Amino acid sequence: MAASFLSRGVGLFRLSRKTTALLSGSRCFSQTEPEPLTVKQQQDGIRRIILNNPRKRNALSLSMLESLRENIVTDLNSDDLRVIIISARGPVFSSGHDLKELTSAQGRDYHTKVFHTCAETKELQTLHNLLKLLVQDLTTRVKKVMTLIQDVPVPVIAMVNGVATAAGCQLVASCDVAVVTEKSTFATPGVNVGLFCSTPAVAIGRAVPRKVAMEMLFTGTPISAHDALLHGLVSKVVPEERLEEETLSIAKRVCQASRPVVALGKATFQRQMAQGRDAAYATASKVMVDNLALTDGQEGIRAFIEKRKPVWSHKVEKAHD
Amino acid sequence: MAASFLSRGVGLFRLSRKTTALLSGSRCFSQTEPEPLTVKQQQDGIRRIILNNPRKRNALSLSMLESLRENIVTDLNSDDLRVIIISARGPVFSSGHDLKELTSAQGRDYHTKVFHTCAETKELQTLHNLLKLLVQDLTTRVKKVMTLIQDVPVPVIAMVNGVATAAGCQLVASCDVAVVTEKSTFATPGVNVGLFCSTPAVAIGRAVPRKVAMEMLFTGTPISAHDALLHGLVSKVVPEERLEEETLSIAKRVCQASRPVVALGKATFQRQMAQGRDAAYATASKVMVDNLALTDGQEGIRAFIEKRKPVWSHKVEKAHD
Amino acid sequence: MAASFLSRGVGLFRLSRKTTALLSGSRCFSQTEPEPLTVKQQQDGIRRIILNNPRKRNALSLSMLESLRENIVTDLNSDDLRVIIISARGPVFSSGHDLKELTSAQGRDYHTKVFHTCAETKELQTLHNLLKLLVQDLTTRVKKVMTLIQDVPVPVIAMVNGVATAAGCQLVASCDVAVVTEKSTFATPGVNVGLFCSTPAVAIGRAVPRKVAMEMLFTGTPISAHDALLHGLVSKVVPEERLEEETLSIAKRVCQASRPVVALGKATFQRQMAQGRDAAYATASKVMVDNLALTDGQEGIRAFIEKRKPVWSHKVEKAHD
Repeated sequence: MAASFLSRGVGLFRLSRKTTALLSGSRCFSQTEPEPLTVKQQQDGIRRIILNNPRKRNALSLSMLESLRENIVTDLNSDDLRVIIISARGPVFSSGHDLKELTSAQGRDYHTKVFHTCAETKELQTLHNLLKLLVQDLTTRVKKVMTLIQDVPVPVIAMVNGVATAAGCQLVASCDVAVVTEKSTFATPGVNVGLFCSTPAVAIGRAVPRKVAMEMLFTGTPISAHDALLHGLVSKVVPEERLEEETLSIAKRVCQASRPVVALGKATFQRQMAQGRDAAYATASKVMVDNLALTDGQEGIRAFIEKRKPVWSHKVEKAHD
Repeated sequence: MAASFLSRGVGLFRLSRKTTALLSGSRCFSQTEPEPLTVKQQQDGIRRIILNNPRKRNALSLSMLESLRENIVTDLNSDDLRVIIISARGPVFSSGHDLKELTSAQGRDYHTKVFHTCAETKELQTLHNLLKLLVQDLTTRVKKVMTLIQDVPVPVIAMVNGVATAAGCQLVASCDVAVVTEKSTFATPGVNVGLFCSTPAVAIGRAVPRKVAMEMLFTGTPISAHDALLHGLVSKVVPEERLEEETLSIAKRVCQASRPVVALGKATFQRQMAQGRDAAYATASKVMVDNLALTDGQEGIRAFIEKRKPVWSHKVEKAHD
Repeated sequence: MAASFLSRGVGLFRLSRKTTALLSGSRCFSQTEPEPLTVKQQQDGIRRIILNNPRKRNALSLSMLESLRENIVTDLNSDDLRVIIISARGPVFSSGHDLKELTSAQGRDYHTKVFHTCAETKELQTLHNLLKLLVQDLTTRVKKVMTLIQDVPVPVIAMVNGVATAAGCQLVASCDVAVVTEKSTFATPGVNVGLFCSTPAVAIGRAVPRKVAMEMLFTGTPISAHDALLHGLVSKVVPEERLEEETLSIAKRVCQASRPVVALGKATFQRQMAQGRDAAYATASKVMVDNLALTDGQEGIRAFIEKRKPVWSHKVEKAHD
């Protein structure tokens, strides 16, 4: 029964367990301990974060977002971290927020009953108010995670093998690099269920031409990996069997660079892109000098002159000034 | 004779009948009642507006612009209207403003004589002053129509099967979606007749990469439908025999959505795209809550929970607050 | 030995002769008179500027930048100049700034010794301070040349047949049009030597989608001519044997237009693109009237009415007002 419920089409957000419990009058969940919503691994400078809730199409629930955020910020300033790869288990990279997480049979029956029996009762209004709070909470947290990805000092790569919709598509758009398989698709289907993908549109509208974004938003129709590449939503399309290899190849190249040099470059890129041309040049020119003053900026030049590979300290301190 | 005059190459603007009459000293036009400049039809939520002056290459004359504007704004707030398709009769979608509309043989002879016989006479200066007023009037009205298209609460689709130049190309760039045939071409040839396409460049420069826009503007050379797609000027290129079907397919998808949800989404997209990232997220997040408060926002969620298709009210009123 | 030094991989900037001389304690260079760093030719309105230091991979040294700037601004306001083509001798269009120009064997030995023997001596600090000044000077001059290209009153075309890296890639991004051969590649490899391409990113980030720019910047991996076209970094990819012909064809088309009309159009495009939509339309609409008031604006209309080719004066003066 849960399965038939879950097999329904595209959803946009879900009620959190807390909300569900509140609504259903139940406060205990006697399920076995669930698997973690995201899995974090780190080796040789590469942190892998895997969305791990395929049964729920890796919906970006409040708890999933919190888990993802935590995985990103943990030891973020450690020299050992150089790049983050976000991927997902299962055929759906992420379905965005999810109407489906009115999970427990108990809760679902209750809601169905509420909706069926009373059009404008107090219970319904309560539900709507809870939904409103939930959406406020969700959009705030989504914004936090999406801007966090752009603001962290290491590059973040999306590795996508499947469907990315709504906030899931926004997640791909928000990463610095996206390597995706040929079968991957991208959509903003909120309009179909009456909740326009306005927050995903912030990231997607800044990644692809306006006409592409608007057709996606107005129709909810998915675009192919090939079209996503054509329009700048993703960086590379590869056959499924080469997804890991190609993604890791980019990640390893990033690891060969100096962490503070990359961090300064990433932050500067975001900053100057928000400015007019002349202000952007002023910003970037100043940063070139700051970069040179970094220990690793100086090591780079020394290594060049000495005809050897540079040995990065990955330290943020300036050499001298 | 008129035909040979009309068969000339690309033109950019035309003198209105009023101006022509003024210049020629004639105030009466004893022609048979002309066909309407644009044709408006509406069925099942889809309004079709057809540029209907193929003999003049669907030039965006003052009267054509006014006719187009009227067709757009009429009953704009009716729930019955969900999407607008702008297409054209004849092999030219639109040639933009048009130097050619010095229409009457009488008027044309007069102007030719003026130009041939007196280089700097008072008559010539009068003509130039009239042209200046005409251009002011035209650019103002063009801006109004182009921004109107982006600001109306329903998506506007350009359905193009042929040549779109100057303000005609701007019209395609200004629509939310553009479905075009393989033989369609796009150009800004004003530079060839000494009147740079600066106003078309506002829309085109925001649709395609700068290098593409500048080559078009500096050389006047047309780009193919394929290149227009590659660079984001159009949404889809289809064989001629499938133009109607593909365009209607997108229009029908839009019709399946709730009108106020789409309207809120379209307005929000335009608004947030003009803002910086963080301000854009603030705008969009607030709108997600407003969207949820719409009658149709709530119907969408209810329908989802009840596992049925939503039945949209298309009403703007909020359900509760 | 110098050759083996020069054969090293990617470099980003170089010490100028002055700096080298200063550092090496030598003030005389007893080499034969060097070839000019850039070559300037002009015919039929087309100015060709050729980067002419293939031995140093056409590095944008201080002197190369100054030579390029001079070639651009000389007789810039002459009616005879209508378009500028920037190309390069040798297999490298430009390698950007260049760490390699620690040229003299003498100087190089000195620096090597400094770096090898004293980690934090005063000499090293002096070198670093000199490098800092050099980078400040370089970024200032680069900005000047790159913005100059966008601000001059004639279109500037990059004609590229080979590798363009760092500030060399920025140069391509800064031109109005870029025609390139299939074998050309584009990269921002600064990250590899610890000096992130932050100033090149100002131009490149405004030419290609963010994801493309960021992958280039984070990995230093070159992109192909085809990908550069796909993403808007270049205007056209042609076989090597047709590079001259295709570039000249665009240049000749520009020459057929009126110089002040093109100048007004180019300046307006840059200006309105930095504005919001409505302000941009206000700017462009006003310019349409100014354009019409130009002698050549009026000649264009007259020629159209008289069914003849326009004869441009190329004069900036207005006809009347």
